[in-house]
Amino acid sequence: MEKVKRVFIRPNSSLNLLSHREIDGLTNPDNQIHALFKQCALAVLNTGVEEDDASVLNQDYNDFAIRVIPESRGIKLEIENAPANAFVNGRMINGIQDHLFSVLRDIVYTHHKITSGGRFDFNSDAGITDAVFRILRNAGVVKPNRSPNLIVCWGGHAIQRNEYDYTKDVGYHLGLRGFDIATGCGVGAMKGPMKGAVIGHGKQQIRNGRYLGITEPGIIASESPNPTVNELVVLPDIEKRLEAFVRLSHGIIVFPGGAGTAEEVLFLLGLLMHPDNHNIPMPLIFTAPQESAEYFSNLDNFIAQTLGKQAQRFYQIVIGDPEKVATLCQQGMEKVHKHRRQTNESYAYNWMLTIPHEMQQPFDPTHDSMRSLKLDRTQPPHLLAAELRRAFSGIVAGNVKASGIERVKALGPFQLTGDETLIQALDELLGNFIKQGRMKIKGAYKPCFKL
Amino acid sequence: MEKVKRVFIRPNSSLNLLSHREIDGLTNPDNQIHALFKQCALAVLNTGVEEDDASVLNQDYNDFAIRVIPESRGIKLEIENAPANAFVNGRMINGIQDHLFSVLRDIVYTHHKITSGGRFDFNSDAGITDAVFRILRNAGVVKPNRSPNLIVCWGGHAIQRNEYDYTKDVGYHLGLRGFDIATGCGVGAMKGPMKGAVIGHGKQQIRNGRYLGITEPGIIASESPNPTVNELVVLPDIEKRLEAFVRLSHGIIVFPGGAGTAEEVLFLLGLLMHPDNHNIPMPLIFTAPQESAEYFSNLDNFIAQTLGKQAQRFYQIVIGDPEKVATLCQQGMEKVHKHRRQTNESYAYNWMLTIPHEMQQPFDPTHDSMRSLKLDRTQPPHLLAAELRRAFSGIVAGNVKASGIERVKALGPFQLTGDETLIQALDELLGNFIKQGRMKIKGAYKPCFKL
Amino acid sequence: MEKVKRVFIRPNSSLNLLSHREIDGLTNPDNQIHALFKQCALAVLNTGVEEDDASVLNQDYNDFAIRVIPESRGIKLEIENAPANAFVNGRMINGIQDHLFSVLRDIVYTHHKITSGGRFDFNSDAGITDAVFRILRNAGVVKPNRSPNLIVCWGGHAIQRNEYDYTKDVGYHLGLRGFDIATGCGVGAMKGPMKGAVIGHGKQQIRNGRYLGITEPGIIASESPNPTVNELVVLPDIEKRLEAFVRLSHGIIVFPGGAGTAEEVLFLLGLLMHPDNHNIPMPLIFTAPQESAEYFSNLDNFIAQTLGKQAQRFYQIVIGDPEKVATLCQQGMEKVHKHRRQTNESYAYNWMLTIPHEMQQPFDPTHDSMRSLKLDRTQPPHLLAAELRRAFSGIVAGNVKASGIERVKALGPFQLTGDETLIQALDELLGNFIKQGRMKIKGAYKPCFKL
Amino acid sequence: MEKVKRVFIRPNSSLNLLSHREIDGLTNPDNQIHALFKQCALAVLNTGVEEDDASVLNQDYNDFAIRVIPESRGIKLEIENAPANAFVNGRMINGIQDHLFSVLRDIVYTHHKITSGGRFDFNSDAGITDAVFRILRNAGVVKPNRSPNLIVCWGGHAIQRNEYDYTKDVGYHLGLRGFDIATGCGVGAMKGPMKGAVIGHGKQQIRNGRYLGITEPGIIASESPNPTVNELVVLPDIEKRLEAFVRLSHGIIVFPGGAGTAEEVLFLLGLLMHPDNHNIPMPLIFTAPQESAEYFSNLDNFIAQTLGKQAQRFYQIVIGDPEKVATLCQQGMEKVHKHRRQTNESYAYNWMLTIPHEMQQPFDPTHDSMRSLKLDRTQPPHLLAAELRRAFSGIVAGNVKASGIERVKALGPFQLTGDETLIQALDELLGNFIKQGRMKIKGAYKPCFKL
Repeated sequence: MEKVKRVFIRPNSSLNLLSHREIDGLTNPDNQIHALFKQCALAVLNTGVEEDDASVLNQDYNDFAIRVIPESRGIKLEIENAPANAFVNGRMINGIQDHLFSVLRDIVYTHHKITSGGRFDFNSDAGITDAVFRILRNAGVVKPNRSPNLIVCWGGHAIQRNEYDYTKDVGYHLGLRGFDIATGCGVGAMKGPMKGAVIGHGKQQIRNGRYLGITEPGIIASESPNPTVNELVVLPDIEKRLEAFVRLSHGIIVFPGGAGTAEEVLFLLGLLMHPDNHNIPMPLIFTAPQESAEYFSNLDNFIAQTLGKQAQRFYQIVIGDPEKVATLCQQGMEKVHKHRRQTNESYAYNWMLTIPHEMQQPFDPTHDSMRSLKLDRTQPPHLLAAELRRAFSGIVAGNVKASGIERVKALGPFQLTGDETLIQALDELLGNFIKQGRMKIKGAYKPCFKL
Repeated sequence: MEKVKRVFIRPNSSLNLLSHREIDGLTNPDNQIHALFKQCALAVLNTGVEEDDASVLNQDYNDFAIRVIPESRGIKLEIENAPANAFVNGRMINGIQDHLFSVLRDIVYTHHKITSGGRFDFNSDAGITDAVFRILRNAGVVKPNRSPNLIVCWGGHAIQRNEYDYTKDVGYHLGLRGFDIATGCGVGAMKGPMKGAVIGHGKQQIRNGRYLGITEPGIIASESPNPTVNELVVLPDIEKRLEAFVRLSHGIIVFPGGAGTAEEVLFLLGLLMHPDNHNIPMPLIFTAPQESAEYFSNLDNFIAQTLGKQAQRFYQIVIGDPEKVATLCQQGMEKVHKHRRQTNESYAYNWMLTIPHEMQQPFDPTHDSMRSLKLDRTQPPHLLAAELRRAFSGIVAGNVKASGIERVKALGPFQLTGDETLIQALDELLGNFIKQGRMKIKGAYKPCFKL
Repeated sequence: MEKVKRVFIRPNSSLNLLSHREIDGLTNPDNQIHALFKQCALAVLNTGVEEDDASVLNQDYNDFAIRVIPESRGIKLEIENAPANAFVNGRMINGIQDHLFSVLRDIVYTHHKITSGGRFDFNSDAGITDAVFRILRNAGVVKPNRSPNLIVCWGGHAIQRNEYDYTKDVGYHLGLRGFDIATGCGVGAMKGPMKGAVIGHGKQQIRNGRYLGITEPGIIASESPNPTVNELVVLPDIEKRLEAFVRLSHGIIVFPGGAGTAEEVLFLLGLLMHPDNHNIPMPLIFTAPQESAEYFSNLDNFIAQTLGKQAQRFYQIVIGDPEKVATLCQQGMEKVHKHRRQTNESYAYNWMLTIPHEMQQPFDPTHDSMRSLKLDRTQPPHLLAAELRRAFSGIVAGNVKASGIERVKALGPFQLTGDETLIQALDELLGNFIKQGRMKIKGAYKPCFKL
Repeated sequence: MEKVKRVFIRPNSSLNLLSHREIDGLTNPDNQIHALFKQCALAVLNTGVEEDDASVLNQDYNDFAIRVIPESRGIKLEIENAPANAFVNGRMINGIQDHLFSVLRDIVYTHHKITSGGRFDFNSDAGITDAVFRILRNAGVVKPNRSPNLIVCWGGHAIQRNEYDYTKDVGYHLGLRGFDIATGCGVGAMKGPMKGAVIGHGKQQIRNGRYLGITEPGIIASESPNPTVNELVVLPDIEKRLEAFVRLSHGIIVFPGGAGTAEEVLFLLGLLMHPDNHNIPMPLIFTAPQESAEYFSNLDNFIAQTLGKQAQRFYQIVIGDPEKVATLCQQGMEKVHKHRRQTNESYAYNWMLTIPHEMQQPFDPTHDSMRSLKLDRTQPPHLLAAELRRAFSGIVAGNVKASGIERVKALGPFQLTGDETLIQALDELLGNFIKQGRMKIKGAYKPCFKL
């Protein structure tokens, strides 16, 4: 475990000054906010390491320390025992340094608004949407006066080499067309499109290309942001992160992935199937290289079997044709652009989209909550999608999140029950994920669920 | 009254996007926040007009209307019957356009924090200091990573031509030395130093010179910001505006003025005489051209008679020597710089300074509150200074603020009582102000006070 | 005579690197190019001094020295005994520092092209036009992709205070409309419009306003560039400087002045009266404050008497109305814009304009050449204008240029002869100039000519 | 052959305006300069195509046309039948568009200086060095005020996939350390390091990374610049291109290549072995992935056999360790930095380096000149290196340049003679090149030489 003993760093971009009250929260090491910042900071510094078990990380770096020090010119950070990977010749890589200060900014901002009583209204749906907007705005991520051009790319972090190369190639063709990229900002399908877009933007002499990483404290440890990310924002939980994705995006591409990708797809379908959203254009493309075509035929089947045929008209599947993906994005973007202009809706944040209450509220995957998921067909498809989304969310937690791993360790795998045909479809899909090695980066996979 | 019938404008700088909730507050014409915005907007548009009676302005433009319109690219403003002075060939002057959006930004921000219950803590002293900081930070006015170089210039808006030229000359020498300027952003001594600094900065090829205007809704109408101002911030009331001045400044210059200038000087002396502030360097220079030397000898006498000799060591008086003023600023700045560095205090905001509770709390000048001011010597000098500050604040209100003018019209002049020697000194000073024509821009002055 | 003993300065803008050969020319103190650079450098440093006799300057600073020193990062200048006026607190004013490197750039460039044999073709008219273009292009002064907006302001350096204030006011209204300003870059009417435009640009938040000074080695000493000038170019002689003015300008304003201003006006009229130029729009406005109306009625008379009524239709006279001047410029500019677009002519350089051979060739005012000027009516008006231009050029030289002053000192005043009515008109105009004190900044005027 | 029928483009960067004379040279289609421009423009547009036989290109696009059209705002280009590869959705890729205008700029500049008689002095060594400097300066490629950080990468355009990936990896580690990259700007080893550096710079948030392509008209057709190149300069011939490489570089890396790479290596060794250059530091690293180690052991042997053991101390060989290459560059750079500072030599252009006359003079490979090369050991090693350099230069011409291919087609392979041991070493090296497929991108290789 190579470490850098001790280093001081200052913000290299324009982090706003902190107030005395804000600094107080960060400098008190007993404070909960300091613990959260420390954990995210370690994750950010642990870049480029192929390890998605956060507890391993915490063990390896149990002597890691980080302190915020106020100075005349602003603040600086004192860091001890940081992963050496984040440094070149003893100097921290600038991209990572920026991420540290992004994390600091978001944690300070969100924490203040949440803890100081009543500032964020997390009880109403409109209140959550407002809070997500304000976190993104404070992070400088919603930008006025720009035409729609942000493509969200979803997909697994544990994908194969040829799939990774394919995501790069798609990113390249998106970059050539001037699109910006947002992802969950880890490795695999979250890194490839950005690297490809960097090359595409380079050829177009675009110097202000955006590589936006959207994460949350629970996921950042296992999906440390790639340094190519030049805008990073940390939402408070998984549901707000998903809301940020769909309200910021002007088009979405899904690459092969595992349970997390399935969670994202179901979230999106539940949303698009909601009656209030039927007239809102949202380009959605599932794409994979030729050799991985099976992944999407499996997923396509699963969707048809669970949500029905009508769910299939919300997406297109493209196999082995990166240029076509980019062209479809462009066509879809024109529709989005036109629709926003006609409705006077913001280009920067899709306020119109209705997110069902069931999907906005945080879901805490315990053995109880998992067991009581309503996996039956007596509800409208968009609500069933919401339940399925939660099922996958719990599986992701059991796979990679610290809290989920502990629960499964203590009480055994999560138990899911419901309609037989649904459970069967689920069983088949998850079986395929395991077979294809899509659940875990390293080692044999031990299921965290029972059907 | 030349007016521009109807015009649409969009922000030409990077006004952050507003959330749906924020826009709601502004678009409802019955709303109190909309009324406040409309009134400040009219004041901003009424630039370059030599009229300091706000009620005249409101009458002349009673058909003025302004509306916030959400658009895909952000927002735009629709304005009807705006003063023609704000336009050149039918296009609004960019500096004024920026001011409109600054006003919008600050009113939205402050209003939200105040009205949504408990977000700003205006009850404790530390809470007020924190709120002022956050308003300034949101306005982009506190900037990290800059060495101290902001000079606050105070003085009257109704000064004579030769005094005005003198303030320009001082500003020129400040600009040549790279200093930025903050003022109350009206005309007279608030405009001259900025215009001079523009020329000085030009010679030094400084393109990012700051001309910061600090105002509040009650004063903006009679002291419309000069378009040279390139950063404008609206604090919620006069006390918070004064706090903003002293916490942002690295040095203060006072030019001749009237009751408002006296208010500012007493605020500052009360503060500097506070025991907790004795070790904090704060360069303070009173300066005037040769022909106006009497103004400061009067004020100097008044200070000696009321606050005592020990108050005189907090300022220097320079007569007729702009270059010396600039040189003294530079020397003082070095002390400030060193002190901040040694104490690790922020360059951008002087957190250390103790502002006595009596000075931070808003003072509402009614006939009752004016009558009960404690103008006696039984209290420590810094508290007496605070009481005298309130007396002058009331006189300013009676002279130029809408609410004050109405009160005096209804109930006659404010009555001030206290120690005989204090009242005498006050009588003399105010008599001189009236004699020298320092109370009003136009017309004969009818006193709003009785001693 | 306050001097700064010794100082090292480096270019603060992007002066291109010099080649070894170019540096050689500058570092050899015996070299003619070094002498020229030294003389211009001294003039640039002598800013803000009201002395237009270059010989006085040279005497006062006979210990002035300047050296070009090559370094790894480019070059630096070592300067000894420079005028203290160019410094604030021991640091050279940035605007002046830029000018030093502009002078260096132009002298190196022009010298190389001239002395290395055949690189500049000064024998043909087209060759001269090409050379002027390339000098301006090398100086970064011709800019592609900008709409026409450059107003040339001409007028005297020795004007009265109210005239100076008027030029500032005109400049202010030009700046408010976004116009850039070019002048001969000395004081008086060459400085006022720039200072006014700085304020106008400030209000419009225009940060890249151009204040272009166009000079030549013979004139720079008596008309040291004001530091507000942010682009400075040194042409090799007076005729090429005039050509630069007319080819760069999109409109010309003439303020009151002396013989130099008359020279410029005659150059321009000779040019506009040339049959080949009849269809080329060129807004030309003579303007003065009310109190100086006589100046232009005199000049107007002189033009009518010498060049005839038809010459009067090429200009408009505006008295005491700065805003009207700016409005006329705007209207004229629209014609220029349209004409250039229709003819596909460059916005940046007016190639179309025919400059008569007689006006492009340098005129060296000796007693002989002055005496043999053809001041008679047997020639077309545009050629007579050329001869009259030369007469005024000689008078300027006798008034302020080192070589001219010496010749007059040695051989007595220049002798001018010709048609009686022409001589009479000349006598009257020059008599008025002397009476109005327009020939010299300081002291009584001793005529350098005899009619 | 997909083509874009007709398109108009304007410079998207700040191409200086052209004078009327310069435009005349370009618009006359019979003109030699127009022909040269057309040929280079076609090459630039033919990006990304894996074809290095220029004659094929010319045949495929014999209906290609390009015209310079003067406009009010500058110039535009009209292009017919351009390769579709240079476009995305009908819009030319910006990087390629920039290249077109770079080519235009350099051809206009160089042509004018060469043809107008005596402007460039190509007869003396110092004159050539001066001309190369001025071409580079005019192209904006020599930059003042930057510390040394430019690494030149040489190597073949026809390399294998794993070698290409290795060059990318080296580029990545260079980019992470902030180095800029210059190459011959074709594909293969000229493209890989740039693409890698783009990713490295991205992680360091370096937005102004330089990817400098240095080419010449004879080579550009077969080595079309990659669009990642963001600075492109066209030197007039191969020798001046080599001079540009060595005078601009602060360190050189050689990857595997063919005859062209050998030419470059011999040029460099001849130069470094020159007695006058012994004290000038010049980091030189040969590097290849593990599988291609043989390439450099062959070359190392060849050097030892021909130039002797003492030639081997001028370079280091690193196999399969990209990070070590970057670290060695950094160490070498520190020496270069220190040496330049100590000698006051420019960081931007290595004037000190002596280039032997034999290497500066253009070599035209005809059957005669090739036959008369002095390949014997009776001369000092640096002159033998110069002769060997010419031999390889001729082979490159016979392989890929239009003129060379024609000569070989007409008269059979070039004949080389000399010392038996030299010829043997040459035979072995070239044999290895052929065996390893390093002479040609596509098809079987037919030798253009006979030993």
